[in-house]
Amino acid sequence: MKIAQLAPVWERVPPVKYGGIEMVVYLLTEELVKRGHEVTLFATGDSKTSAELSSIYHTRPPRNLLAGGDLVPDLLHVTSAFKRADEFDIIHNHAGYCGIALANFVSTPVLTTLHGPFMAENKRFFKTFKDAVYYNSISDAQKKGLAGLNYVGTIYNAIDVDRYEFKSKKKDYFLFLSRITADKGAHTAIDVAKKAGVNLIMAGKIDPGSDTEYFEKMIYPQIDGKQIKFLGEVTDKRKKELLRDAKAFLFPLQWPEPFGLVMIEAMAAGTPVIAFPYGSVPEIVIDGESGFIVNSVEEMIGAITKIDKIDLFKCRNYVEKKFGATRMVDDYEEVYKKIIKRHNSSRG
Amino acid sequence: MKIAQLAPVWERVPPVKYGGIEMVVYLLTEELVKRGHEVTLFATGDSKTSAELSSIYHTRPPRNLLAGGDLVPDLLHVTSAFKRADEFDIIHNHAGYCGIALANFVSTPVLTTLHGPFMAENKRFFKTFKDAVYYNSISDAQKKGLAGLNYVGTIYNAIDVDRYEFKSKKKDYFLFLSRITADKGAHTAIDVAKKAGVNLIMAGKIDPGSDTEYFEKMIYPQIDGKQIKFLGEVTDKRKKELLRDAKAFLFPLQWPEPFGLVMIEAMAAGTPVIAFPYGSVPEIVIDGESGFIVNSVEEMIGAITKIDKIDLFKCRNYVEKKFGATRMVDDYEEVYKKIIKRHNSSRG
Repeated sequence: MKIAQLAPVWERVPPVKYGGIEMVVYLLTEELVKRGHEVTLFATGDSKTSAELSSIYHTRPPRNLLAGGDLVPDLLHVTSAFKRADEFDIIHNHAGYCGIALANFVSTPVLTTLHGPFMAENKRFFKTFKDAVYYNSISDAQKKGLAGLNYVGTIYNAIDVDRYEFKSKKKDYFLFLSRITADKGAHTAIDVAKKAGVNLIMAGKIDPGSDTEYFEKMIYPQIDGKQIKFLGEVTDKRKKELLRDAKAFLFPLQWPEPFGLVMIEAMAAGTPVIAFPYGSVPEIVIDGESGFIVNSVEEMIGAITKIDKIDLFKCRNYVEKKFGATRMVDDYEEVYKKIIKRHNSSRG
Repeated sequence: MKIAQLAPVWERVPPVKYGGIEMVVYLLTEELVKRGHEVTLFATGDSKTSAELSSIYHTRPPRNLLAGGDLVPDLLHVTSAFKRADEFDIIHNHAGYCGIALANFVSTPVLTTLHGPFMAENKRFFKTFKDAVYYNSISDAQKKGLAGLNYVGTIYNAIDVDRYEFKSKKKDYFLFLSRITADKGAHTAIDVAKKAGVNLIMAGKIDPGSDTEYFEKMIYPQIDGKQIKFLGEVTDKRKKELLRDAKAFLFPLQWPEPFGLVMIEAMAAGTPVIAFPYGSVPEIVIDGESGFIVNSVEEMIGAITKIDKIDLFKCRNYVEKKFGATRMVDDYEEVYKKIIKRHNSSRG
């Protein structure tokens, strides 16, 4: 197939540091090329790829620099891809809104992977253009946010499992690793660790604004540097070490996150996940096998006490099978074929 | 002709208070309908128009509410117009970037009126899509900011002259009316008034951020409520009274503004303009006839002393002829015809 992969313009492929979307685009593109497809990747010029690379920006443009806010780089990048629409059997849009709007004007079928959650304010946008685009969700939970779109399936994100070192001998701590926000339950993780009498290492970025206030009020006073440690934002290397060495990954999530990639990263390193059942959690964690799904602080403490019952090798194998790049690309290949067939027949 | 007028989504047509673009779109649309054209106005639902009104938003959406910043309302609004492209002989885009990007995907010719100045950061955008759109500038000065676009002419903005009361008997003050910024020379107006020994009334909005700092440091300490008065932001009604009663309008502009509508409003009320020669000033003010173009504080003081030599009736007549809606719509009609002809012949 001739496939256009349209990445966001805001981070290179693969990402330098953070960037779940760009990592998925990277793995998908590499594997598609390996399988013999003709892939063109629309991404920043500093991206690394085996596909043909098409770039407007040499590197990611700064945010909010321009008179038109973020609009100009986004529009310029996405339009450059759609102007070449006729060259492709399918355009795979990971770049969101602009790609959806432009899909109205080309005859090549467009698949949009929904990478974010639905918000009340943008539902109108998706509904207005629901006939222009095929969508895939990244979890069944995500789809609950907006019914009635042209869904062709749920395809879970993947990681490159080989990049995660597995360790069955753990150090004496539990891990909270995420942006430090109330949504992610940073304060609940501390509460759980204190009541359970276990060590907690916390790592993650604090965004300016309300998250800083949250950190100063709810988190900072509880850090003692012994039982409760806070490392701030860490490198990718350090993150993987922290995941690898933890007894379990605590994820007391408080909102319906559409896909929690970090849970998969933990399990790949042989670290079970103990999480509240919001969003994609029940689709990602197998209760009693790759961790525990719990409903309260008390249940999370209970799960901590029985964490040794989890088979860490099974955690790893489970991720390889369900969240590896091979499975993801199998799924996307199938969906591409389905869309092209449906699109051609609907156009008579 | 079948004409689509595409207004920005951020303010109704005509504007409730401020909104130079929306006022131009209003005058243009009303006059085109009067002349028998079939006009569809794409604007918010609370707009007032004799044309067919097509709206996605009932009223202007809030800024920066959405996950995608201002992108979502902008894209949604503009795409809704372009999806109907085939119904029109021409699309007249006043909505900026989105309209330019989408012009790549329709066969109807698109005229974009450049309402803002060119910034270094967005020149790349205009250059990339230079073949997709016809442009008209709103002054010759504006075009200097970016050569090589597909310009079909310069068409000055217009005002509805009848809405400006003319008065030849003036009160004892000079007027500075603009946003209070260094760019507009608010501090210079004070300097001039003090040195000339005349009264100055200042009115205008102070934007949060650097403009507030500028006001507090450079302007506020000099306001004495007698010789130098500051009224803050005023209503449209009060603005017209202030313009009407002033001996002259002081415009010590410090940057190349592409079009200074307020100068025309002043002259329409029979109030001469004394301005520095930046941007569109030399195209708008006739030196010695509708005011004075000066190059320094000293020359501005000199102009104040000879302001009685200006014939105020001539100011008014000049605006009626050169900046009235009739002239503007004559110009646009001609440009529309020229574009349609050129477009059809280039498409064989």
